[in-house]
Amino acid sequence: MRMVDLIEKKRDGADLTKEEIEFIIQGYTNDEIPDYQMSAFAMAVFFQDMTPQERASLTMAMVESGDQIDLSKIEGIKVDKHSTGGVGDKTTIALAPLVAAVGVPVAKMSGRGLGHTGGTIDKLEAIPGFHVEIDTSEFSELVNKNKLAVIGQTANLTPADKKLYGLRDVTATVNSIPLIASSIMSKKIASGADAIVLDVKTGSGAFMKELEKSKELAEAMVEIGNNLGRQTMAIISDMNQPLGFSVGNALEVKEAIEMLKGNGPDDLLELCLTLGSYMVFLAKQATSIEEARTKLQEVIANGAAIEKLKTFIAAQGGDPTVVDDTNKLPSASYEIPIKATESGYISKIVADKIGLAAMTLGAGRATKESVIDLAVGIILHKKIGDQVKEGEAIATLHSNSENVDTVIELVQGSFTIVQEPINPPTLIYNSIS
Amino acid sequence: MRMVDLIEKKRDGADLTKEEIEFIIQGYTNDEIPDYQMSAFAMAVFFQDMTPQERASLTMAMVESGDQIDLSKIEGIKVDKHSTGGVGDKTTIALAPLVAAVGVPVAKMSGRGLGHTGGTIDKLEAIPGFHVEIDTSEFSELVNKNKLAVIGQTANLTPADKKLYGLRDVTATVNSIPLIASSIMSKKIASGADAIVLDVKTGSGAFMKELEKSKELAEAMVEIGNNLGRQTMAIISDMNQPLGFSVGNALEVKEAIEMLKGNGPDDLLELCLTLGSYMVFLAKQATSIEEARTKLQEVIANGAAIEKLKTFIAAQGGDPTVVDDTNKLPSASYEIPIKATESGYISKIVADKIGLAAMTLGAGRATKESVIDLAVGIILHKKIGDQVKEGEAIATLHSNSENVDTVIELVQGSFTIVQEPINPPTLIYNSIS
Repeated sequence: MRMVDLIEKKRDGADLTKEEIEFIIQGYTNDEIPDYQMSAFAMAVFFQDMTPQERASLTMAMVESGDQIDLSKIEGIKVDKHSTGGVGDKTTIALAPLVAAVGVPVAKMSGRGLGHTGGTIDKLEAIPGFHVEIDTSEFSELVNKNKLAVIGQTANLTPADKKLYGLRDVTATVNSIPLIASSIMSKKIASGADAIVLDVKTGSGAFMKELEKSKELAEAMVEIGNNLGRQTMAIISDMNQPLGFSVGNALEVKEAIEMLKGNGPDDLLELCLTLGSYMVFLAKQATSIEEARTKLQEVIANGAAIEKLKTFIAAQGGDPTVVDDTNKLPSASYEIPIKATESGYISKIVADKIGLAAMTLGAGRATKESVIDLAVGIILHKKIGDQVKEGEAIATLHSNSENVDTVIELVQGSFTIVQEPINPPTLIYNSIS
Repeated sequence: MRMVDLIEKKRDGADLTKEEIEFIIQGYTNDEIPDYQMSAFAMAVFFQDMTPQERASLTMAMVESGDQIDLSKIEGIKVDKHSTGGVGDKTTIALAPLVAAVGVPVAKMSGRGLGHTGGTIDKLEAIPGFHVEIDTSEFSELVNKNKLAVIGQTANLTPADKKLYGLRDVTATVNSIPLIASSIMSKKIASGADAIVLDVKTGSGAFMKELEKSKELAEAMVEIGNNLGRQTMAIISDMNQPLGFSVGNALEVKEAIEMLKGNGPDDLLELCLTLGSYMVFLAKQATSIEEARTKLQEVIANGAAIEKLKTFIAAQGGDPTVVDDTNKLPSASYEIPIKATESGYISKIVADKIGLAAMTLGAGRATKESVIDLAVGIILHKKIGDQVKEGEAIATLHSNSENVDTVIELVQGSFTIVQEPINPPTLIYNSIS
């Protein structure tokens, strides 16, 4: 087999066999296939796409390129959730204890990553004492005991994907459905998930800006998962504005705690109930989506969910009393209100700009070396569709610096106010299974 | 400017500016743009094509990536000819003295190259004493004096093209009209041509197997030339069977000599008259193609063309008496006839197989290090459309080895004999200007 012939085959629209795709991914992982052939191949895939069979083969080849996590010591069906990411997305922090309280084993491997705010682990580290440095046997024991534990990503997962992603990033081949879908799914499968629930974001603040493209990606991932024997479901959810009201690490933890106490916000709650009911259903802790949803509502109402969060925090060295007194979370020195410049209705909140504003305050990493300020961030007071009066606060910056003129400008510029009433956007567009 | 953005721009079907294309080619030549970006770009070009303006810019950027030959000391309009190559193509050896005899200055820079037989320089070196190691000032003087000289390629011409071609070869991006056309045209323009005549081969023995693709390539090159101020004309000529009867270095020189003496073969003569009349016309040595053709026929009839060949050979150290006595050319030890296995009409002669057979005898280079045997080759006795009787010789191998069973098989296998009469193929399909 020669790589140049396989590039040509894909270029000319033919389908590659499982063996051919394994040859490509193994060769690339072992540095036997050079970057310049791989990038030409990726561009050919961009134009010629891949069949469901090719996508499944590509995903498995990437899974097999590195370590695969063995979760067999954990009882029950391990359901993993993945979000394509957005601004103010604290879903995991609320969702994990929520479904664990219903009996779903949540064995979460998480990362830090770059972005507007920290990753899930960064956010959790806003809780004093909390840490993810536990070994794998302790991890399994904790999940068996509490149904929930979070561990940092230490294993060498999907190195082929890591290498290919870096290459795609500099060769304009990121935006290809088969490549995105296999990248995400390979990581989930290598992490040991039996079943997978996907939250594909759509809108101005999402990686996928258009609904049609988001649907296509969701369908592609569900098909890959099901073809590889992992029951997979997906939803398409809105990211035309930030999720909930808070953006920033400690601020998001606080909002997740409030939600588990039954204090909203509505969009975060609805998203958690939807994703959670799929997880409960796939874990066979309910016989229907409706029953699963009822169970989730019950554990919020009866306090079991918030208790689960406390148990989880304590088990990983954190101070569980932050749940009762969120003032124990890190807080910023300055709270700077941002006021509406006119009266009317909010028609737009550009999520990306809010995210950038939060990162500018120090909530996220611009480079791998950046140090995150866990206390800072932005709290929105208005969402799309809300009425607002001139001079009323539309948002508050939580900052450790007074010198925030550019941030104020960014936040102000992200809001559009119009005179006619506006309907709030749909939160969940589609469910795919 | 960032290369990744330019790849994306081309990927999405937008047109690149002259400055953007210069950035790419300069960056790639200077190793500032890595191979993996260039190969992704080439694949994007494969799918999205280039506008005439982009093609012209790409060609000039490659011209400017290296040395440009200054032929200004040579009087008259310098017309260069280029063939996309085929089996038995000895056109240059006959054509150069033919047009020089009419007064067209021929300042030919030639190479050796890989292939079924040697390049033009290899073929000319079959003439005892002939050499191309002359310096540039002698080169100019010879052309001014004799209207014809051939020099080896010593300058650093179009390094960007050389580098890009090597990359395309291993990334399945060779077969792209804008990339092929700009590659050929950049070399011709860097070589100092004022006007260019192109012979694009089509058929089983050509790089372009399909007539439509050959036309597209010819039109692309003519457009580039004209857009860059070099009057350019092209023909599409047949390469479904070898050109003429002989394949092999000394054998081809002999056939070219015979043609200049007025002894055919018909196809080679017709091709030389067609290409030659375009060259004479573009060099303004005739006011019409018809007048040019008449002049060429005259110099063959009155012996001026064959005299020009002698003068040219003598001026570059060769023995001009080989023209009168072609037995002075190197000859092989064995002549092995190959016989028809049945009676009928020749319907096919697979040129590629004949070429491979000649290379197997030693007439061409399989690798850069191979040493060519100038004496060996194949003489065909039949062409497509000819009648043949069982046991009649259809070809003769000229070999320095008796152990030629595989070669006999190759040659025999390249002929197809049918029972119904067959028309000979069209020699010249199109002219483009």
